[in-house]
Parts: sequence; C-alpha cells; structure tokens
Amino acid sequence: MTMANDDLLRREDHGAVARLVMISPKNFNALSTEMIAALRQALDGIVTDPAVRVVVLAAEGKAFSAGHDLRRMQAARADADGGRAAYETLFADCAEMMQAIRALPQPVIAEVQGIATAAGCQLVASCDLAVAAEGTRFGVNGVDIGLFCSTPMVALTRAIPPKAAFEMLTTGEFIPADRARELGLVNRVVPADHLTEETFALARTIAAKLPAAVQMGKRAFHRQTGLATPEAYAAAGATMCENLMLPDTAEGLSAFLDKRPPAWADR
Amino acid sequence: MTMANDDLLRREDHGAVARLVMISPKNFNALSTEMIAALRQALDGIVTDPAVRVVVLAAEGKAFSAGHDLRRMQAARADADGGRAAYETLFADCAEMMQAIRALPQPVIAEVQGIATAAGCQLVASCDLAVAAEGTRFGVNGVDIGLFCSTPMVALTRAIPPKAAFEMLTTGEFIPADRARELGLVNRVVPADHLTEETFALARTIAAKLPAAVQMGKRAFHRQTGLATPEAYAAAGATMCENLMLPDTAEGLSAFLDKRPPAWADR
Amino acid sequence: MTMANDDLLRREDHGAVARLVMISPKNFNALSTEMIAALRQALDGIVTDPAVRVVVLAAEGKAFSAGHDLRRMQAARADADGGRAAYETLFADCAEMMQAIRALPQPVIAEVQGIATAAGCQLVASCDLAVAAEGTRFGVNGVDIGLFCSTPMVALTRAIPPKAAFEMLTTGEFIPADRARELGLVNRVVPADHLTEETFALARTIAAKLPAAVQMGKRAFHRQTGLATPEAYAAAGATMCENLMLPDTAEGLSAFLDKRPPAWADR
Repeated sequence: MTMANDDLLRREDHGAVARLVMISPKNFNALSTEMIAALRQALDGIVTDPAVRVVVLAAEGKAFSAGHDLRRMQAARADADGGRAAYETLFADCAEMMQAIRALPQPVIAEVQGIATAAGCQLVASCDLAVAAEGTRFGVNGVDIGLFCSTPMVALTRAIPPKAAFEMLTTGEFIPADRARELGLVNRVVPADHLTEETFALARTIAAKLPAAVQMGKRAFHRQTGLATPEAYAAAGATMCENLMLPDTAEGLSAFLDKRPPAWADR
Repeated sequence: MTMANDDLLRREDHGAVARLVMISPKNFNALSTEMIAALRQALDGIVTDPAVRVVVLAAEGKAFSAGHDLRRMQAARADADGGRAAYETLFADCAEMMQAIRALPQPVIAEVQGIATAAGCQLVASCDLAVAAEGTRFGVNGVDIGLFCSTPMVALTRAIPPKAAFEMLTTGEFIPADRARELGLVNRVVPADHLTEETFALARTIAAKLPAAVQMGKRAFHRQTGLATPEAYAAAGATMCENLMLPDTAEGLSAFLDKRPPAWADR
Repeated sequence: MTMANDDLLRREDHGAVARLVMISPKNFNALSTEMIAALRQALDGIVTDPAVRVVVLAAEGKAFSAGHDLRRMQAARADADGGRAAYETLFADCAEMMQAIRALPQPVIAEVQGIATAAGCQLVASCDLAVAAEGTRFGVNGVDIGLFCSTPMVALTRAIPPKAAFEMLTTGEFIPADRARELGLVNRVVPADHLTEETFALARTIAAKLPAAVQMGKRAFHRQTGLATPEAYAAAGATMCENLMLPDTAEGLSAFLDKRPPAWADR
C-alpha cells in the first residue's frame, strides 16, 4: 500500500483500488472549500492514472460527512457583498467536484458510516455506488436551520423517487441505511465492523474486470441518462462497437467460448 | 380554527396549516368541473397567503376521490360536437389544477382514505407528499370502462416505476396502501383512525421550518426535475445563494453554531 | 390454438393472445441476427392484426435468453473491417427490435424463466410488463468477458434505479426474481410450474379491456415518457378526448352508470 497525505484527505493505494479517506473528523469531514479542492485534486490525479481501476471514497470518524462548513460560511458574511460571491464560488466548486465523480473514468464507491447529511448525503448520491454500515443515517436537513438543501437535491432526486426525496428535504428527517437501500441511495448495507472489507470486496470485483470496458461503460452510462431512447441506443450502440474492437475484448469472448480464463494484456 | 365553505370544498385553517376538504361524498368527491374550479380557486387563494405554510388536501366520506364525474361527462355527448369541446376544456382545466399544486409555493400533502381512482389517484400523485390510511386502495381503472387513464398516467409515471404504472393502467387493478408506499406513490401509511392526526403531524413538522426556505426549495425541486445535471446544479446553486441571503437563514446558521434555537422573524 | 413456426420462433394464438416462443434452447435462445429478424417479423405481423390484443414473449429451455450469439460475433472478426460493420448492423437491428416492442400497439408481456442475461435481460426490460418464474436470475454480465452491456443498459436504466443498474453492469452479478420485482424489472414472480398460466391470466385480464383504449393508452404511455409535464399533459389530454369519442367508450361509460356489462362492438 502506498499513501499520499495532506491535512484533509489521504490517498491509499491498495493494488488497483485507490481509497480516498477524508480525515477531518473534528469537523465531521465538512465539505469546506479546502476539502472540496482536495477531493477535486485527488480525483483529477486519478483521471489519467492507469493503475487505478476503482476508487473508494471513505471517511474517518463518527460521520462520513456533515456537509458544508457552516462556520466558514457564516464568516463570509463579513465580506463586502454579504458573502454572495463566496457562496457562488463554493456551490459552483462543490457541484463541479460532484460532477467530476461522474466524469471520472473509474467507478467510485462511497464507503459510508455514521451520518451523511446535506452535501455529505449529496456526495453519497453522486458516487456511482455506495456501501453503508448498519446504523448509518442519511439526511438533507439544511431546512432545519433555514437553508433548504437545494444542491444536494440535484443528486438526491436523480437517485431516489421524488416523493421520498421531497419528504427528506422538507422535514429534515433522517432515514436509516435499510431505507436508503430500499430507495436506491445505497447498494449494500453491511455490519459496521465489516464496512471497509465489504466495500473492498465490491471494489475488487469491479477491478477484476477489463478496465477499458468498465470505463467505456461508465462513460456511456452517464452520457445516455436523460437522452430519449433512440438517441440513447445510438450512443450505446457506438460504445458497444468500440468495445468490441478492443483486442482484450476479442480475447475475452474467445476465452469464454473456449471455457478458459481470458489472457488479458491489461490485467 | 377558521373555516371557509362552499358546497364542494371546505377550507379549515389550523394555525399555519390550511386543510382543504372535498365534501362531496355522495359522488365520491368526483373531480367535476365545479370541484376542479373549487380546488383551483382555493389553491389560488393560498398562493399569496403568508399565513399558510403547508396545505393538506383531504376528503370526506368513503372515497378520497373516484376521479372525473362520469355522469356529467356522458351528458356532454348531447352537445353539437358530441362533447369534444367540453372534454378538451375539462382535461385542460384538470391538468392545470394538478400543475397548480406543484406551482403552489407551499407544500401540499394528500390525506388519503378509502379509494383514490383515476383522476383521484392522479391527485395523490400530484401532491408533493401523501399520507394514506391503512386499507386505502389506489387504481387507474378507467380502462375497465374503455377509457384509458391517460392524464392520470402523466402524474403516476412521474411518481412510480414504469412497469408498475403500466400494469395498473392496463389491468385496472388496485394496489393497497403498502404497495403504494413501496412504489413511491405515498410517503406514509398509518392506521385509519389516526390519518388526520398523522397527516397534521407531518404538516406541522414542515410548517415549523423557515417558510421562505421551504418555498424556495419547493420551487427549486420542481424546476430542476428533468433538467440535465449541469443545468440543474446551476439553478439549484442560485437558489442556495438566494436562500443564504435571507436574514432568517443567517440567524438559523448562527443559532445552530451557538447551539440555541433560532429567533426567526418569520415564525 | 393456431400456430406458425419457423426454426427459431413459434407463434401460438390463444384467442386474443399471441404467444411468441423463442425455440432455440440449444444456444439459450441467443439473440442472433436471425432471432432478432424473426422477432421483428413476428412483431411486424402483429402490428396490423386486429385479432391480437396482447402479446406474450416466452422461451423454451433452461434460459429465457442469454443475449447475443457470441460465437457468431467472434466469426465476424474475419471480415475485412474486423467485424465493425457487422456489429453496427447487429446493434442497430437489435435496438430497433427492442423499440418495436414499445411501438407495437398491443401490450407485450415477457414470460421469463431460467436466466435472462445481457440482451436477454434487455428484452425483459423492453417489454411493457414481465412475469418471472421463481428462481429466474437476471444479469447484464458482459463485463465479465470484457464487453460492457451498453445497449442493454439503455433499457435497464429506464426500468430500475440508477445505482442498482450500475452495480449489475459493473459487477456482472445476477439478481434473483424477487429483487428484480423490488427494483421494477418484473411485475410478478410466480411459482415456476405456474409461469405460463399466470402470464396468461395477466394477458387475458388486459385482453378483456377495450382494445382501442388499451392501444391508445400504450401509445400515449411511451410518447409522454421523458416529456416535460405540461407537454405530457397536452399529449395525454388529446388522447383522452380521442378515446372518449369512441362509440365503444360511450357505451362503456353508459354501462358503468347503468350498472350493467358493456355491449362493446369490439369484443
């Protein structure tokens, strides 16, 4: 395992799996400007890193993430414009980081424990997959302090049914991990003391696939979302053809037909 | 509690919660031209009523609503055009009323008992939230009499998964309240004799939030639905900034950081 | 029961229900160029066949369908262009066949047993409704051989929530029938030895409705999907008016109001 570290985010490389760990438990891994920048930088560093096939996004401490740093947001009110420019920048940077997860070639799995609230819940919703520890609670509770979770809503409403999202957003109430799975916010709920292990098991399952195929597929997945069906098929069909032109895919099909494991160059 | 009344719809004001009660149990609260107009008028009266923070839409009798008034629809066949113009007006007015629920600044909660069929089921689907009594049944069963529930389908398919909607629409079969919750058509299922109480509990939870934040949030919720993610984030980010500029929101954040209840002007 | 047969697909007509049975169990009902063409031809023959009110799509053997014919796909690599043109044609033809199911006036019910993988799973997702035998497994496992199921993804992501779809696509793991129902991929799960019977029961329920209403409704269903709500209501309202102009629908409403069964011309 190799590690890179800064004050807020640690990158651990376990074979083909890069695990990004938010290490700011004191402020519940708040998505401050600096944490957003650290996540963005780490993601950008992985875009072109062929050694990384899957990313796990984890957190130390009692909370996965409690969302934006409210203390810092309040401090910005001292600005000449009452904070408006700072807020605009914050939400734009945050939304770009969330979308960078989708744009990243490699699948990203959230490894979630404790609580994931507001932008922290958005972060879970924005990952391609999520594994949650039993006992984890999810909420978009900004409304409790007079700040409706409008940006978290964008990711949330693209992951779970509308009435359930509206209830979470307007009541501020938390949902338990099992309900989060039922609604589609997380993929798996596992015992808390197996969280990292189970998340890695999922990561390694995906990392064992042909990386080029997984990456083409992830790109196609997000590109076709929201397209009309004929356009989605045109895009997806083009992806299938590109995928089939890969020598490793030719080998994959041959190996399957010959009932032997594939001898992939990229393995 | 103050009350306004007409023959079809009663408005009860319980503090910040306006409860609109359909009171036409004899025809199962049919969504006649007059009932649609009464609902529309009541909603329009609430748009600019700052005393109302949450709306509950309820019904008296054995049915929440059995949909359009078939007897009246048949009578229109005597018109020179066989009823076509009357039908066009009816469905346009009905669709506008359904969309007025979404456009209303305040959240609207359906309080549902008995049966909700056809346009009555559409009404439940169109509300932002829904609480159902145990034993309530939901259906879009126009197909049983040769009239496919095409307009109810618009709201239904935006609330529940497509194959489940298609089954309801083509078989005319009813689903029980638990299945409606599983599918996302209702938020909560409660004992029948606690329906009003539980619906009010939900309404009061939301009414206790900062109204301006809830209303900005509701508007943003429906506006970003169906937008591509980047455009949705742009809209939602702008909403977050506006929300943060509210003095009450500044107070909300301060209060949270100071671990005290907020002293909101608008409370 | 009348029957039409070719080597790959058998059509059985049971009253108003046409049952198309894939009869290539040796290659697990692979969606070869020929099978796609046979399905397309059978569907095209039903478009204008007023005797058919509902279509059941079934399969003989241990698998509903295992997807594309990999042996044939590998053979195409000997082409001058490495197979690219053949693949483009294959995926275009396949996508058109899948969309022909949606474009077919009559509802199509998948009757699924054994396994439905890759394009076989796409076929289930593309049907309007699906009934599965207990024990059926569903997967989009092309990723296991280096070929991400990009085209199956188009139908799958329009039927089930995104994170669940992403997990199936990137892990290649199968889901059981109960989970498929939970996610919205199938409507009903029944004991394996009652599969045909239960599928027919559903088919006959729908076949007993007014065909013109069902067909208008199905067309409206797929047309309004993905439209903004106001445009969806405009389209659905127009459909409601057309539907009401049908003499059989006038009779349907009269019969309902008179509490007698409708005397439909088209029954």
